[in-house]
Amino acid sequence: MTKVRSRRIPSFLKTVSTHGSSPGSLKHVGEKKTTKPHITLWTYNEKTVEEVELQSIEEYGKHKRKDAVCWMNIDGLHDAHLIEAVGKEFNLHSLLLEDILNTTQHPKIEEYDDAIFVVVKMLHFDEKHDHVFVEQLSLVLKENCVLSFQEEPQDYFDHIRDRLRSGMGKLRSGGADYLVYRLLDSTVDAYFTVLEQLGETIEDMEQQFIENPDDAFIGSIYDMRREMLFVRKAIYPLRDVVLQIQQLASPLMQESTRPFLRDAYDHIIQSTETVDTFRDLLGNMLDNYLSIMSHRTNDVMKVLTIIATIFIPLTFIAGVYGMNFRHMPELQWEWGYPAVLCVMAAVGLGMLLWLKKRKWL
Amino acid sequence: MTKVRSRRIPSFLKTVSTHGSSPGSLKHVGEKKTTKPHITLWTYNEKTVEEVELQSIEEYGKHKRKDAVCWMNIDGLHDAHLIEAVGKEFNLHSLLLEDILNTTQHPKIEEYDDAIFVVVKMLHFDEKHDHVFVEQLSLVLKENCVLSFQEEPQDYFDHIRDRLRSGMGKLRSGGADYLVYRLLDSTVDAYFTVLEQLGETIEDMEQQFIENPDDAFIGSIYDMRREMLFVRKAIYPLRDVVLQIQQLASPLMQESTRPFLRDAYDHIIQSTETVDTFRDLLGNMLDNYLSIMSHRTNDVMKVLTIIATIFIPLTFIAGVYGMNFRHMPELQWEWGYPAVLCVMAAVGLGMLLWLKKRKWL
Amino acid sequence: MTKVRSRRIPSFLKTVSTHGSSPGSLKHVGEKKTTKPHITLWTYNEKTVEEVELQSIEEYGKHKRKDAVCWMNIDGLHDAHLIEAVGKEFNLHSLLLEDILNTTQHPKIEEYDDAIFVVVKMLHFDEKHDHVFVEQLSLVLKENCVLSFQEEPQDYFDHIRDRLRSGMGKLRSGGADYLVYRLLDSTVDAYFTVLEQLGETIEDMEQQFIENPDDAFIGSIYDMRREMLFVRKAIYPLRDVVLQIQQLASPLMQESTRPFLRDAYDHIIQSTETVDTFRDLLGNMLDNYLSIMSHRTNDVMKVLTIIATIFIPLTFIAGVYGMNFRHMPELQWEWGYPAVLCVMAAVGLGMLLWLKKRKWL
Amino acid sequence: MTKVRSRRIPSFLKTVSTHGSSPGSLKHVGEKKTTKPHITLWTYNEKTVEEVELQSIEEYGKHKRKDAVCWMNIDGLHDAHLIEAVGKEFNLHSLLLEDILNTTQHPKIEEYDDAIFVVVKMLHFDEKHDHVFVEQLSLVLKENCVLSFQEEPQDYFDHIRDRLRSGMGKLRSGGADYLVYRLLDSTVDAYFTVLEQLGETIEDMEQQFIENPDDAFIGSIYDMRREMLFVRKAIYPLRDVVLQIQQLASPLMQESTRPFLRDAYDHIIQSTETVDTFRDLLGNMLDNYLSIMSHRTNDVMKVLTIIATIFIPLTFIAGVYGMNFRHMPELQWEWGYPAVLCVMAAVGLGMLLWLKKRKWL
Amino acid sequence: MTKVRSRRIPSFLKTVSTHGSSPGSLKHVGEKKTTKPHITLWTYNEKTVEEVELQSIEEYGKHKRKDAVCWMNIDGLHDAHLIEAVGKEFNLHSLLLEDILNTTQHPKIEEYDDAIFVVVKMLHFDEKHDHVFVEQLSLVLKENCVLSFQEEPQDYFDHIRDRLRSGMGKLRSGGADYLVYRLLDSTVDAYFTVLEQLGETIEDMEQQFIENPDDAFIGSIYDMRREMLFVRKAIYPLRDVVLQIQQLASPLMQESTRPFLRDAYDHIIQSTETVDTFRDLLGNMLDNYLSIMSHRTNDVMKVLTIIATIFIPLTFIAGVYGMNFRHMPELQWEWGYPAVLCVMAAVGLGMLLWLKKRKWL
Repeated sequence: MTKVRSRRIPSFLKTVSTHGSSPGSLKHVGEKKTTKPHITLWTYNEKTVEEVELQSIEEYGKHKRKDAVCWMNIDGLHDAHLIEAVGKEFNLHSLLLEDILNTTQHPKIEEYDDAIFVVVKMLHFDEKHDHVFVEQLSLVLKENCVLSFQEEPQDYFDHIRDRLRSGMGKLRSGGADYLVYRLLDSTVDAYFTVLEQLGETIEDMEQQFIENPDDAFIGSIYDMRREMLFVRKAIYPLRDVVLQIQQLASPLMQESTRPFLRDAYDHIIQSTETVDTFRDLLGNMLDNYLSIMSHRTNDVMKVLTIIATIFIPLTFIAGVYGMNFRHMPELQWEWGYPAVLCVMAAVGLGMLLWLKKRKWL
Repeated sequence: MTKVRSRRIPSFLKTVSTHGSSPGSLKHVGEKKTTKPHITLWTYNEKTVEEVELQSIEEYGKHKRKDAVCWMNIDGLHDAHLIEAVGKEFNLHSLLLEDILNTTQHPKIEEYDDAIFVVVKMLHFDEKHDHVFVEQLSLVLKENCVLSFQEEPQDYFDHIRDRLRSGMGKLRSGGADYLVYRLLDSTVDAYFTVLEQLGETIEDMEQQFIENPDDAFIGSIYDMRREMLFVRKAIYPLRDVVLQIQQLASPLMQESTRPFLRDAYDHIIQSTETVDTFRDLLGNMLDNYLSIMSHRTNDVMKVLTIIATIFIPLTFIAGVYGMNFRHMPELQWEWGYPAVLCVMAAVGLGMLLWLKKRKWL
Repeated sequence: MTKVRSRRIPSFLKTVSTHGSSPGSLKHVGEKKTTKPHITLWTYNEKTVEEVELQSIEEYGKHKRKDAVCWMNIDGLHDAHLIEAVGKEFNLHSLLLEDILNTTQHPKIEEYDDAIFVVVKMLHFDEKHDHVFVEQLSLVLKENCVLSFQEEPQDYFDHIRDRLRSGMGKLRSGGADYLVYRLLDSTVDAYFTVLEQLGETIEDMEQQFIENPDDAFIGSIYDMRREMLFVRKAIYPLRDVVLQIQQLASPLMQESTRPFLRDAYDHIIQSTETVDTFRDLLGNMLDNYLSIMSHRTNDVMKVLTIIATIFIPLTFIAGVYGMNFRHMPELQWEWGYPAVLCVMAAVGLGMLLWLKKRKWL
Repeated sequence: MTKVRSRRIPSFLKTVSTHGSSPGSLKHVGEKKTTKPHITLWTYNEKTVEEVELQSIEEYGKHKRKDAVCWMNIDGLHDAHLIEAVGKEFNLHSLLLEDILNTTQHPKIEEYDDAIFVVVKMLHFDEKHDHVFVEQLSLVLKENCVLSFQEEPQDYFDHIRDRLRSGMGKLRSGGADYLVYRLLDSTVDAYFTVLEQLGETIEDMEQQFIENPDDAFIGSIYDMRREMLFVRKAIYPLRDVVLQIQQLASPLMQESTRPFLRDAYDHIIQSTETVDTFRDLLGNMLDNYLSIMSHRTNDVMKVLTIIATIFIPLTFIAGVYGMNFRHMPELQWEWGYPAVLCVMAAVGLGMLLWLKKRKWL
Repeated sequence: MTKVRSRRIPSFLKTVSTHGSSPGSLKHVGEKKTTKPHITLWTYNEKTVEEVELQSIEEYGKHKRKDAVCWMNIDGLHDAHLIEAVGKEFNLHSLLLEDILNTTQHPKIEEYDDAIFVVVKMLHFDEKHDHVFVEQLSLVLKENCVLSFQEEPQDYFDHIRDRLRSGMGKLRSGGADYLVYRLLDSTVDAYFTVLEQLGETIEDMEQQFIENPDDAFIGSIYDMRREMLFVRKAIYPLRDVVLQIQQLASPLMQESTRPFLRDAYDHIIQSTETVDTFRDLLGNMLDNYLSIMSHRTNDVMKVLTIIATIFIPLTFIAGVYGMNFRHMPELQWEWGYPAVLCVMAAVGLGMLLWLKKRKWL
């Protein structure tokens, strides 16, 4: 799982070189972990459902059934041998396996002879750290079988499992391609949750923007734009991916699943539109922040200039008559002091009028 | 109805997660209300017209007629059971019903086997709060029948009702697809009204911009750009929607309705062009605001600098001869005072000339 | 005729709601006038030419000829009855008539069964008010007949009339479609004239930009960008319009007119390129204006800071020895005064050197 | 020849109205000249080559040969009669002749029945005035014949003439279309020369940018961006022109010339990429210039504020004890003066610490 | 090899004129070198592999084999005669040879009758100078034969050589087109390495940005954006190149290589996305830098204004009572001094309250 922390570019937006290794050679690219990956196998059809936790991929043979859809979910990708074993068992292309292990992939879809391979990004908003986490989900659709690979155990798909258990809705009768749709749909739904939370943060920022923008405020705009950048790069390519799935002329895709995919596509469009709206709002905020700052600096300058324009000349006059020359006839005059006060008042007033004419007051 | 208030992002531009619910399950997404929804049923053909308020969807059977077009308008979406009943009565796809209830939809068109489903946004300018309200309108075109779903009772369609009653124009003889066109056309016409009012506000702002831009002015540009953003997101997708309706090869659409749809398309293009013009005008205003501020700050600074450049050195000279040293020969000179005044005048003049050379005066 | 004055958005860039009226119902949208519209009818072929001013549309029948091209030009659109009569006489679609009357149309082309309908914008530079005026020109091409509708009598087409009278060139023998081309070409040529004048204004601005940009200068950039915005919105859509005319597979268009339309298309491309160039120039000017202002403010600040840095500390020292404490031993020293002057000189020099090191001098 | 001087928009980027003249009527649009145009005629095939300077177009008949390619080059377009004579001799369309004479054309290609007409812009860097000159080159390819029209005699094609004379390379045997390619290629090559020189200027500017940006520097960025704008508008359309020539299915173009045109296309792509790079570099420079100015202004302000913050309060204290009240007890104190000095030191130190805490020191 | 140093535009982004030379004539364009180019020849099939260093191109005949793939790698392009000899030996088009020698090419692919020609840019990050170096790699795929041309000996392909020697993987059995893929893949992989290093630099900059942005920081943003500009121009065109290779319907490309090319295409997409992310991050940083500077200047100004607003009027009052007029009654008052102190305190407090009201404190 890649953490989108401030000051760290998420790994799927950087690139990781595997320079020197042969294409198709299996090597996990991502953070290393030591816990054993979980393999969960569901075999279900309209009538029955079986749920087992496999200890090794070899156990799969015992549970294989011709009349049921199988869904194998693997949490944890750091064990390349396991993935290799899965590849052998399900007869997967070496490039496909390589892509599963490389968690720096961009979302994409690839059609192989007897399999459809989809890579998407799952998003999760971590409220404690106020950041979005990105995790890669790889899906392989084969005849009557779906393989899903996640980086870490998450609860995104719990409601799918609940429905499989209960047999409610179309899920148990929908076929493997319908399951792929449901997995994608859950992923997109998780985007909605993340975007809702980001939206609330932006509304708070707009509120703060009006009240009192300070250095921290600009920092939060900066962080937010950064976050939106990463979220956008995770969501955008999914548009094309789902469009391509819809248009696939593959026997693996049933006609009846198509309207659901169109629905998923609508949802992705909606997420990307939301991301765009947020970006526009942040951009608008920044533009206006600059205008306001510009205006305020102007305001501050005016006050300074008004004070200086009025008092500096007066102080100078006072300074002149504070000189200690022996022969300064004005100092001896009976009305010298009031006269100077009058002159000062006149100069001050003149300055005020001039400033008024300039519309600075 | 979604209110586009400042500091609130309208819900259709955010996303609302229905995480965990099965696709096609009916749940109203939007503000909850307690009033009972209104169901109005119109059945009309060239010769007759009947208008009834239904208490429940079951009453529809009594009014169904083979030789007439029916238009059922439902105001209020918070009663999911009602929508479900409508769905059953008219045999609508579960995803379609879900979309009707979810008022966070983006404008779109979807073709089902025996129905065309259109989602558009209605705009309404609330002069009291100076804001644009957005409401979702869902239209379902079936053979000889149009269903329209609004979030709240509004008077957008009153003139359509008037025409149905009076039998004027092409409406009574135009078929169900012509009615859909008229509903869309009224929606677009409401855009024109909103844009007219926004246009007047922008003209006022341009006037104020020249006279005296202040902090509040920037705030109003900010609010206006924000509003335009939301209006744009509501109007833009309609372009594609109407284009797609025009190009539908569906038996539900008559050839004779096509020129009218082309006309509606022209109107939408015109609205989007207007939105673009407004955005450009606001952008131009903001750019120029920054230039003017920059220029004014420069101006203010110049005045400050001129005052300081002339008087600070003079004040210093006065300060020197205000010192109380016992042995300051100049103080004893007969012409000391006039001499210092002359020196001051010379310094002041020199500064003035130097400033003149710099073109600051 | 819509006047593009500063602070007024030309009506064709706003939208005018005709809410409540049935589509195809005739109502003039634009400024009302009371003068009677002029109807001029030309009937010509290679051998003869006839020019009459009609008092009413009914007179048309008398002048109708099978072996000649007719050109009816109507100046003034405020008489909806007249337009309706024209529509009846020439059998025009109601939507077409509605579009003629609505002068807030964007340029477009529409093909009807037996007519081609073109809306373009005519531009006119008013040197007295330094503004561009926009007027709508609607053209209807029917078999052997051209109808043109203008908002006000103008002299754009006088040279076409001269040529008709004299029989020079291809005009009399060119057919109705060639006349449409000539009318379009004259319109585009008027764009050239307007752009030439705007170009001269921009050249003047560039000159002034170098000499002395002031508040008024920014204002003129602002006005110019605004004007370009409106001119652009009037010219741009014509590109597609003429392209579509070229590609029309209509019996109303002769093959021999096509190269001329290609030529007109080239001219429009050239106008749009010119508009783009002007926009880029204005944008470049504005960017550089901001840089220059930024640089000048920096310059002004430097001068202020230099003066303040040098004299404020010196003034402080003078202030100290201007205090009236009874026990200030330095004041009694024989060389106190020269010593303080030396200290002052040293401080001043030190400041100067420090400023020099900072490259501020 | 159009001179791209600062403050003058080159004529091909403005538009020149020929309002009132009939399309296809010949009138030279551009600077008028009085020198007689040069007509040079080359007739060559693999074996022979003949080079003559014609006095009038009528002499062409004497040199016409069926078994040779002819290349007629005309320098100077101000003699419309000459061009008309050429048109008659070679049977050229009147619109084509009009385009040759109008030197405000944008680059384009047009296919006529028996001719291909190409307009391109030649660029020339004038090192003395540090500006780019733009000249129009019109090429007409007819069967076995190439006509080229330039505004002024230039030496762009001297190496082509050398090769014709010497018979080196493919030129003499390549046919008329190959000659057209060579003329285009020479033109593009001249772009390279101009861009090389502009590139050097930009490198110099980047050097200066680091050392010391001043007002003149911004001016030079401005001029450079302006120049790039004009160069770009001259080069960009050529992309499409050469692409269209490549794709022409005309008997005038031989298959063997196609790879060479592809090569020319590559070169134009390279020029446009170079122009884009230069624009990006200038934009980047300008952005950074603004940042640096912003930072420096901030720096200057800090120094001013530090000086003012420390000395203004101190000067005030000194001012207080410089007052001449009779009853100021502190003045009489034995340790009054040192005490005040200590207070001043304390205030100054406090200010310094406060500034340090703010990280301004 | 072109060094991307600051202040030097890499030569492939400038253009180099070869004005006057005939197209197809061979001349090396780039830095001249004197060392002899290396020619390495590999001939391999599934069973055998031979590796020889050739002294001259004539030796190639001895090693030519029908049943093996040959890969000839030439390091160093300054010897045009050598390239000419290669061209003769392998029957290459003169334009192709010209392109090999001109190292200012943009990435491209060209299909010749019996050869596919690919130009790409190799990137190398030089940690010592903190800059990216660009080198041109030209590949020619002929039947059973690959020619590769590099500007300087580099170790990019060492692991390919290792695999050829060891016979591991698909390389020895993959054919000439698979070798081309591997060479391209290695090049793209080197992009990943470069981008990883640039990514780290950007992360460091983001860290520094928060801590303390100074003049040097802006300089480094500037340099980085410049570098990204060059990297982008080197990588972007490769997208189309690989796409075109994939779509080539050439007998030189085997069907089995296609999935690998799709994989390479994915990698390039990933690099370009990374470049875009970096550009966006740098742009975001710059925008925010300007906002922060603007805010800070405002802050600094406020402090200055507060100090000046409070103390300048007070200093003026002190100045007034420092005047030496003989008749200043206040000076004689018993409570004059405390009274003035109170007035000063009142004025100071008033100013403070006013500033507080303005929210400046």
